[in-house]
Amino acid sequence: MAAAAPPPPPTPAPTPPTGLPQSDSTAPFGHTLFSRIRLATPADVPHIHKLIHQMAVFEKLTHICSATESDLSSTLFNSPPFQSFTVFLLEISHSPFFNPPPSSGSGFAPIDRIVNLDLPLVDPEAESFKSSSSGPENDVVVAGFVLFFPNYSTFLAKPGFYVEDLFVRECYRRKGFGRMLLSAVAAQAVKLGYGRVEWVVLDWNVNAIKFYEEMGAKVLPEWRICRLTGPQLEAYRDAM
Amino acid sequence: MAAAAPPPPPTPAPTPPTGLPQSDSTAPFGHTLFSRIRLATPADVPHIHKLIHQMAVFEKLTHICSATESDLSSTLFNSPPFQSFTVFLLEISHSPFFNPPPSSGSGFAPIDRIVNLDLPLVDPEAESFKSSSSGPENDVVVAGFVLFFPNYSTFLAKPGFYVEDLFVRECYRRKGFGRMLLSAVAAQAVKLGYGRVEWVVLDWNVNAIKFYEEMGAKVLPEWRICRLTGPQLEAYRDAM
Repeated sequence: MAAAAPPPPPTPAPTPPTGLPQSDSTAPFGHTLFSRIRLATPADVPHIHKLIHQMAVFEKLTHICSATESDLSSTLFNSPPFQSFTVFLLEISHSPFFNPPPSSGSGFAPIDRIVNLDLPLVDPEAESFKSSSSGPENDVVVAGFVLFFPNYSTFLAKPGFYVEDLFVRECYRRKGFGRMLLSAVAAQAVKLGYGRVEWVVLDWNVNAIKFYEEMGAKVLPEWRICRLTGPQLEAYRDAM
Repeated sequence: MAAAAPPPPPTPAPTPPTGLPQSDSTAPFGHTLFSRIRLATPADVPHIHKLIHQMAVFEKLTHICSATESDLSSTLFNSPPFQSFTVFLLEISHSPFFNPPPSSGSGFAPIDRIVNLDLPLVDPEAESFKSSSSGPENDVVVAGFVLFFPNYSTFLAKPGFYVEDLFVRECYRRKGFGRMLLSAVAAQAVKLGYGRVEWVVLDWNVNAIKFYEEMGAKVLPEWRICRLTGPQLEAYRDAM
């Protein structure tokens, strides 16, 4: 599905609800979070699958979400990063990232950022989203992802990137991570000399539209998506 | 740019305007046209470039069309067909296609169709659109193209095809060729086990919308395209 709505600019994090598991309190820097954007690898498929399912719940579209781990494994990671379907993962740790990320062989240098919060953050799903890159020195969780791939503008005669999905888990929202993920895709597009980054948004999602416009994007009001799928697509099996 | 509007279902061809060059009258089958859809090769770039320019004129968007032959040559044909940006060309001849198409090494079998017209067809640009596949037995012209590439649905965990452009030269419109080109993409998607074929249309282009719906597509009313380009994209060069 299309890009999930990142929230409007950061607001103070709410007080952790009573009864939820508390976050790892070994963090030596108070309410500091260490974040990293890295390329996903096949070892991350279980987390990517769970994130996609959470996104479907968020969009109330679970009835059209049929992705399995096996489907993802067989369709992602078949081409070098950026040349086809590519996933950036957002990782969060309470301590600095000493361990290198899993190698994707791409030469893409992970992007590290330190985020200071007003209040401690509780991740009730920290255990089930423990990252494959977790090491002895830190406890790394997967907090979100962006899936993108090349598209093409004939008028520019240049590739661009199309962002199919942008998702941050609920407890990490309103902290600038959605902006970080989208900025990472935009920065990579500039680095490759590409002409555009595009994605879609629901017309009623005014917070998301405001956020995207603040990031420099223009919303194109006149274009509509046409989709041929299911039995209507299947009907073309013997059409030619 | 996005898919140019194919016209509504066929209507009788207009009488050829006086003063225009007449078409090759050696056709042995009266008003019969032989059409073929084949993969484009680098030798077709000059024609693809001219078609893109005609499309920009049709869409009144020449001011944002900066594609050069050199840009096209360096950005297309870098991956095997269907794995990245792919172009199907529509070729027309007044006699049957005996000569094989230029090899693209893809194993894609060209699609041949015979089209019977009520009136003779005049192609005033036949000379400048003479195909690289023209042989001694026939005079082949390039009449249109479709440019498409893989996209991805996370909910299906399957690739699809996105159709960036669909264009048929003016004198070949209203004869079913737009449908042929789009059907060829849909048939290839089914063959590869893909989940969707998608493209965009201008909301005021009611003829095109009607045509696409007749082909089985659904128009998604709520989604809007967001585009980050030009200086706004360039601003992300040092963002990360």
